[in-house]
Amino acid sequence: MSGGVFIKTLVVVGHPQIEDSSTQQFLKEAAKLPDVTWHSLTGFDVNVTAEQTLIKQADRLVLQFPLYWYAAPAILKNWLDQVLTRHFAYPDATGGLIGKELGTVVTLGSPARNFAAGASEGYSLSQVMTPFQALAHKLQMSFLPTFAVDQFGYQSDEKKAGLLIQYQRYLTQVRLGHFNDQANWLVDRLTKQIAAAPEKKRQQLTLILEQLKNNQATLEDLQMNLKMIQDMEDS
Amino acid sequence: MSGGVFIKTLVVVGHPQIEDSSTQQFLKEAAKLPDVTWHSLTGFDVNVTAEQTLIKQADRLVLQFPLYWYAAPAILKNWLDQVLTRHFAYPDATGGLIGKELGTVVTLGSPARNFAAGASEGYSLSQVMTPFQALAHKLQMSFLPTFAVDQFGYQSDEKKAGLLIQYQRYLTQVRLGHFNDQANWLVDRLTKQIAAAPEKKRQQLTLILEQLKNNQATLEDLQMNLKMIQDMEDS
Repeated sequence: MSGGVFIKTLVVVGHPQIEDSSTQQFLKEAAKLPDVTWHSLTGFDVNVTAEQTLIKQADRLVLQFPLYWYAAPAILKNWLDQVLTRHFAYPDATGGLIGKELGTVVTLGSPARNFAAGASEGYSLSQVMTPFQALAHKLQMSFLPTFAVDQFGYQSDEKKAGLLIQYQRYLTQVRLGHFNDQANWLVDRLTKQIAAAPEKKRQQLTLILEQLKNNQATLEDLQMNLKMIQDMEDS
Repeated sequence: MSGGVFIKTLVVVGHPQIEDSSTQQFLKEAAKLPDVTWHSLTGFDVNVTAEQTLIKQADRLVLQFPLYWYAAPAILKNWLDQVLTRHFAYPDATGGLIGKELGTVVTLGSPARNFAAGASEGYSLSQVMTPFQALAHKLQMSFLPTFAVDQFGYQSDEKKAGLLIQYQRYLTQVRLGHFNDQANWLVDRLTKQIAAAPEKKRQQLTLILEQLKNNQATLEDLQMNLKMIQDMEDS
């Protein structure tokens, strides 16, 4: 892990028709952040050494793909099969992924609520993602909760704005799910925005920042703040 | 399903280096049975219509592959991604797989006992295979228990002989796991062997057949018989 609030993240995107996917284009824009490398796979030919170098430079490896038949598309599976050689990946060999985090971002064609026992898909997303959890276990990585994006095309602009922030946090926040880190992540993000903002926005952002720093932020406040930030960015 | 004791089975084999795999060569020999089609994938180019025709002709679809990172290798995943089009596969469209059986034959590099909570792999094979179970659920197929072949290279000849019979049953026996069908499967198999056998073997086989038909067979008898058949085939 790097020393600051931000960590280095490699997003490996496996989508056979990424140019046609409005979801992936949206996420690609959202991923334009410091310390995030967006790496979209283009075919089945893989430069193993180059890919392993990319992995080595990252603290967090995020595999991002549309769920095809409850698994990664072949283009991403091929990448895993080729790049994670025994020598590079196995902890009793080089152990090149030990201590890193493994995240998964999956886009779903059907509502996330359908993934449950008794619902139409019949199995939870956690169950379906077991192979990735087992991979993290094998390579001594920390497995992060899967970030699911369902039915992006049907989401309101407000929901999409929230999704953008949540996705950015998923890519970059240290210790996902810890409240203090969520606050720290926001403080860091706001500080950078204030430096770059025009005068009008700077005052608003500074107010929010002070509120955060004074530890008066509750989770609901934070969520309101997230929305405010987004609205400002859109304006 | 076909009317007799045997059913039509399509074995789709996805192994990137199948010629180097002694396990797959062994299974290929074992699969030389009536009503079994062995279909080994050779690359990422897929003739979707031809593959769909193969599926239509089968009662049982068996996906056979080495477990790579707790999932199918890319060559097989690509086949699934390409061939199971929404139009062909979804029950609310053509529903081309409704009522068929889905089997999975996986070869493991590590012992099967390692696949358990608390063991070195950390997850059961059933957990790992959830995506295939979900696939069967989605397409209204019957999901068969996974047939696992672990550490084939270390197995004794006797174990390999047993494996051969179990694998042949997995490919061809109606209603796997039902004792009566196991007996019927043997009766059918023996009847065919008797017709083709030289005189010396024919008498032995006929004795076994009579025993089976008289319903005196217990599971232990059956297992002994299986071994005897195998010994005769080897002699």
